[in-house]
Amino acid sequence: MELLEKRIVSDGQVKSSEILKVDSFLNHQLDPELFLKMGEEWKRLYEGCEINKIVTIEASGIAIACMAGLIFGCPVVFAKKGKSRNVSDSCYSTIVHSFTHGYDNLILISKEHLFPEDKVLIIDDFMANGAALEGLIELIEQAGATVVGCGIAIEKAFQPGGDRIRSKGYRVESLARIASMDPENGITFVR
Amino acid sequence: MELLEKRIVSDGQVKSSEILKVDSFLNHQLDPELFLKMGEEWKRLYEGCEINKIVTIEASGIAIACMAGLIFGCPVVFAKKGKSRNVSDSCYSTIVHSFTHGYDNLILISKEHLFPEDKVLIIDDFMANGAALEGLIELIEQAGATVVGCGIAIEKAFQPGGDRIRSKGYRVESLARIASMDPENGITFVR
Repeated sequence: MELLEKRIVSDGQVKSSEILKVDSFLNHQLDPELFLKMGEEWKRLYEGCEINKIVTIEASGIAIACMAGLIFGCPVVFAKKGKSRNVSDSCYSTIVHSFTHGYDNLILISKEHLFPEDKVLIIDDFMANGAALEGLIELIEQAGATVVGCGIAIEKAFQPGGDRIRSKGYRVESLARIASMDPENGITFVR
Repeated sequence: MELLEKRIVSDGQVKSSEILKVDSFLNHQLDPELFLKMGEEWKRLYEGCEINKIVTIEASGIAIACMAGLIFGCPVVFAKKGKSRNVSDSCYSTIVHSFTHGYDNLILISKEHLFPEDKVLIIDDFMANGAALEGLIELIEQAGATVVGCGIAIEKAFQPGGDRIRSKGYRVESLARIASMDPENGITFVR
C-alpha cells in the first residue's frame, strides 16, 4: 500500500537494522484517517470473503482493528494480556513470547466473544517473529472458529514470522513489507 | 446519550453495586459503529471549541479515542503504561493508582507528541475514582498544553472522580452517568 509505505519513509525512524520506530502515526500517536484507508485496503483485499469478526491484541493493534471493524461492519475483539479482575475465568488463553519486551505474556479472550461459527480476520500493527499472530490464531482455533486471514500493517519480511505462518496455509496480507532497513540507507520494501 | 444508556441496560451486566461489566461492546469486544456515534456526540458537545489533539490511555480507551479522532479530524495519542523499549526516554510521566487492579502504574507520553500549543480533549471509557483522568491531565499540563475538556463513556457518578475533577474547573462530558446500580434493581442514570 503506497500510502503507508510513503508514510513509513517520511515519518518512521530506522533505529537499527531491526528496529523501526513509527510512534508518530502508528503505535503511540495515531492517525485515524490513515487507519480508515488501511481498513478500506484490507476490505478490498478480502473482498468476497465472509468475515464477521475482527480479532487483535492490546494495545497497539486496537485502533487499527477498530477502524477496520467500522469498514467491515463487524465487531472487534481484542485479546488481553495478563489477568484482569473484570475478565471472566472462562477464557481461551495461551502464552506468547514478546521478542520486543523479552518476556512471556498470557493472552486471553473471553469465551463469550468467540464462537465456532465465527469467520475471523486478525489485525495487528506489526509482524516480525509472528509470535503474537500465532497466539491469536491459537485462541481463535481453541474456539473452533475459522481464521479467514490476517491483516498486518507493517511486516518485517526479513524476519521469519510471515513465511512460517503462510507456510501453514494462512493468508497474510501485509500493507507494507520491509525487505531490509538500516539507519544510513533507509528502507527497502518487498515488491 | 440515550443510545449508550440503552446499550448499557441491554448488554451490560451489573456484577455488584460497584462493578459493571460492559465487555460485550465497550472494553473487550468493541462496537465500532457505536464508538463513531459517541465521537459524533462529543463533537456536538464540544462544538466551537478548538481541539487539535485527543489523548487517552491504553488499553480500553484507545478504540473510542481513535474513532473520536476520526470525527474531530485530529491525531490521537495514547499514554502507555510502564516502560517500553521503543518509547524514548524523553517522556512526560506520572504515577496512577489503579483501583480496578490494585496497583500503581507509571504512565507516559513521549515529549515528541505533546506541545504547549496543543488544545487537548481527553477521552476514556470509564471514570470512577478519576485517577487515570487526573494522571492524563497532569501529563498534558507537564507539556504546557491546554486541557479543553474530557469525554468519558461511562461515569460512575456515585464515586468521587467526576465531582473532584469538575470542581477543579475541568469540563467533563460523560455520555452515560450512573447514579446507582445493583444486580437486583439494575441501573439508575443521572438525569
